[in-house]
Amino acid sequence: MELARRLSKLGTETAFAVSAEAAKHVAEGNTVYPFHLGDMNIKTPDNIIEAAVEAMKQGKTGYCANYGIAQLREILAEDINRSHGTNYTMENIAIQPGGKPTISKFFMAMMNAGDEVLYPNPGYPIYESQIEFQGGTAVPYSYLQGEKNFIIDIDAIKKSITPRTKLIVVNDLQNPMGAEASLDELQALADVIIKHDLFVLCDEAYFDIRYEGKSNSLAALRGMAERSLVLYTFSKKFAMTGWRLGASIGPKEVIDVIAKLNVNDESCSNHFIQYAAIEALTGDQSGSEKIVATLKERRDITVSILNSIEGVKCFKPNATFYLFPNVTELMKRKGFDDYEKLRKAVLQETGVSFCTRRHFGRPLPGETQRYIRFAYSGIDVDDIEKGLNKFKKWAEA
Amino acid sequence: MELARRLSKLGTETAFAVSAEAAKHVAEGNTVYPFHLGDMNIKTPDNIIEAAVEAMKQGKTGYCANYGIAQLREILAEDINRSHGTNYTMENIAIQPGGKPTISKFFMAMMNAGDEVLYPNPGYPIYESQIEFQGGTAVPYSYLQGEKNFIIDIDAIKKSITPRTKLIVVNDLQNPMGAEASLDELQALADVIIKHDLFVLCDEAYFDIRYEGKSNSLAALRGMAERSLVLYTFSKKFAMTGWRLGASIGPKEVIDVIAKLNVNDESCSNHFIQYAAIEALTGDQSGSEKIVATLKERRDITVSILNSIEGVKCFKPNATFYLFPNVTELMKRKGFDDYEKLRKAVLQETGVSFCTRRHFGRPLPGETQRYIRFAYSGIDVDDIEKGLNKFKKWAEA
Repeated sequence: MELARRLSKLGTETAFAVSAEAAKHVAEGNTVYPFHLGDMNIKTPDNIIEAAVEAMKQGKTGYCANYGIAQLREILAEDINRSHGTNYTMENIAIQPGGKPTISKFFMAMMNAGDEVLYPNPGYPIYESQIEFQGGTAVPYSYLQGEKNFIIDIDAIKKSITPRTKLIVVNDLQNPMGAEASLDELQALADVIIKHDLFVLCDEAYFDIRYEGKSNSLAALRGMAERSLVLYTFSKKFAMTGWRLGASIGPKEVIDVIAKLNVNDESCSNHFIQYAAIEALTGDQSGSEKIVATLKERRDITVSILNSIEGVKCFKPNATFYLFPNVTELMKRKGFDDYEKLRKAVLQETGVSFCTRRHFGRPLPGETQRYIRFAYSGIDVDDIEKGLNKFKKWAEA
Repeated sequence: MELARRLSKLGTETAFAVSAEAAKHVAEGNTVYPFHLGDMNIKTPDNIIEAAVEAMKQGKTGYCANYGIAQLREILAEDINRSHGTNYTMENIAIQPGGKPTISKFFMAMMNAGDEVLYPNPGYPIYESQIEFQGGTAVPYSYLQGEKNFIIDIDAIKKSITPRTKLIVVNDLQNPMGAEASLDELQALADVIIKHDLFVLCDEAYFDIRYEGKSNSLAALRGMAERSLVLYTFSKKFAMTGWRLGASIGPKEVIDVIAKLNVNDESCSNHFIQYAAIEALTGDQSGSEKIVATLKERRDITVSILNSIEGVKCFKPNATFYLFPNVTELMKRKGFDDYEKLRKAVLQETGVSFCTRRHFGRPLPGETQRYIRFAYSGIDVDDIEKGLNKFKKWAEA
């Protein structure tokens, strides 16, 4: 048996190995404080579950259209238009079994072999994996550490563009950094994209996980809707990670291609779950509001304790459920040169489990600052306090 | 905006266009007798629905492992071992969001650009689409019309093998023909596959939709498990087409790659549905038995009426829910030379909607016999009788 050669270019989420290690630590009788997961320990709101049950009982158990059911596509288009100020219709929407399928299908639809694709690094590792697996050239861009937040490095993006640059991945409200661009920065980015005639994968997985202010969408800026494919997911806003439901939103021409890829890859998304998604968008919103309030409380306590630790400096993002503290000083003081050694030592000695910069793309030349990533979506406030106080004690010992 | 060049090689299920046409005919106030669909108008058994509801309420709404939940993988391995006589363990199983994802992932995992891949034609059109979309060379093999059934043309397969032939797709219990190989024929096929060191996608979507006798699996023959990836689906046996749940079953080395593709493409399959699948495999089987009994009754009446029509000759397969009647004489007598003209005329004049040989791959050189395909999974006995009697009247007028 011979596996396909292209597999040598397939990446993965190395964070799963951290999960496995944490699970092993628990199995060995230890307490683990799980900050490594982007999963949520919050239940899906009851009204959404009830809608799924009702749809199942009404026999919505056969295939539906490869684009998804019309009613959901209409409602989602309206919902996005309200939050984004766009003019989408159902023809701009293809329902997907999760947020992630939009990533691989975007590259299938838009990328030729040899095309250069700009992508965020540190960033969600599946971008890099899919660009390279599908024969593109992954060109990283990074973020600058500002006073109060991470800032997308538009100058570096400009310098990286060549005649072969065709696509860019933008994940504003970013995993792992929680970075968010101002409207001016988004406009500057749009200018570059339009000038160089690029097409964008606009990953908005965390658009609605927001504690202060209002999220802005790159795709909503003038001239951008026709060159953007938006990744939408029900996973975060409605605590539906395990349901696997999302959507690709973009120009009809691209959506038609993506719907044809749906026929090839999975026929359609689960039928009855789409009725639950209608309830999620149109029904009682108190469940979703409670999810955001819960996450906000967690963010506040996590940031507060992290910043009280000597040698740790952590921004307080207005959105996402990720923190990306700078631990350069801490690592120096504690004598760690290697991310994995730090991570394993903290897990073994305190039970606190997190990912590091290494789980979010190949380190770039010249990186001097060190970062680790905390997700607070899968851990309650009590455990956040217990775990981080142990971490603080370890750090300051 | 420029779409990817590879899309010129992407196929689809043209049967969806037939569905759209049938829906339009209904919207115009007509009755349609739907024989074009592989979907089922049978409800998922209640005990399976209840298990999904229970799992949802127990909070199985977060991510699960990319391989699927361990309990389902164990139970499915045992179930397959019982029906196949194989020795799979959970390590041989990666849960998928449907049967179809195994097709595209098989080619991602096993095919290099330029590899020749043997595939059935007439056959499920996604094989041809995915082989070509992913850069392989699709080499069709066909079936002979025997006395009582269609017979896989092993001699033609032997002649088609070149040094570049690496893979073969086998869909015994076949869509669209309902073809089934004898154990001797499967063994002869296995001999060819082993001799030429091929790897097999063994599509067993209809393994359990069986009315007489016992299904045999190519993958279960000596020396074949290590060179076969089995496509398993919950869709048909349990009337769960719209749930989107299936599995890839094969050598651990291949399953590990496919699970890595899961991480890239969709993270995991829906979590709570996997508990429903456990109930499907281990709980009360009367629902599944009733599904097969219902389909058997439909098969019998469909075959009987079709064979009573002058110029139509239809086999009575022991498995699948498809029939592939030979209509060469009928078309000649009614003056039709073109499949689409026949199909549209019958729809317009009788409301009977079916697919033709044209929906199942590019016609091969030298084809003289004409076939149409009837699926009886989505139409009740009463409507089968009404529709086919209209078709008979039209045919014999």
